[in-house]
Amino acid sequence: MMSIFSKIIAGEIPSYKIAENEQFFAFLDIFPLRKGHVLVIPKIEVDKLFDLPTDYLSQMLVFAQPIATAIEKAFKCNRCGISVVGIEVPHAHMHLLPINSANDLNFTQPKLKLSEAELKEVQEKILTQLNLSA
Amino acid sequence: MMSIFSKIIAGEIPSYKIAENEQFFAFLDIFPLRKGHVLVIPKIEVDKLFDLPTDYLSQMLVFAQPIATAIEKAFKCNRCGISVVGIEVPHAHMHLLPINSANDLNFTQPKLKLSEAELKEVQEKILTQLNLSA
Repeated sequence: MMSIFSKIIAGEIPSYKIAENEQFFAFLDIFPLRKGHVLVIPKIEVDKLFDLPTDYLSQMLVFAQPIATAIEKAFKCNRCGISVVGIEVPHAHMHLLPINSANDLNFTQPKLKLSEAELKEVQEKILTQLNLSA
Repeated sequence: MMSIFSKIIAGEIPSYKIAENEQFFAFLDIFPLRKGHVLVIPKIEVDKLFDLPTDYLSQMLVFAQPIATAIEKAFKCNRCGISVVGIEVPHAHMHLLPINSANDLNFTQPKLKLSEAELKEVQEKILTQLNLSA
């Protein structure tokens, strides 16, 4: 059975897409910790990030870099942080979030409930910055 | 002025070293969230991880991979998680930790106070697993 993330990559489940290449796909976490919360996933189904083949490990941060820079510009923050927890969905994923403190990466906090319009606005803010630097 | 991490790399401040190559250095966080908490740092002083040159971004997870696998084997856990916060020390660093839940990556929790003997024991457990898989 395809993971929920593979269904998102295949377009079977809609998503607020941010970027994609041959290896990776980036989209908004629809249960974000903060506005600007993006998930980066490989296009192959591997549970644990560190079990990815070397050519994925070597390109994941390189793929994430312009997205992180766009998040940092789009949302008032000290920088873009990274978290890889990965226990809930058995398909490796990296969280990118605009952070001002360690608590902004605390995944035990309640998630935001954003409307479709708010998610669309977050997506557009990040895409605008991505396009400006492209 | 050299960052505290550059002093650790240079050996001016002692550390519980785990691994090193031309680009990166890994050692125990002496204020760990959990036993098995390792820091991976580039040997160049760059504040934000995503400001690292591409050849560092492309090799950081590749360098971290065997260390993460060793941590996962050395400590009872679901997997090795990643966190990049980086607000406290202006030298990019990646936290690797054995995790069983999202709360195990919650940096607002109080840190453990480990004795030198306990830190040495943690270091040896990880090095044993690293050597077994080398």
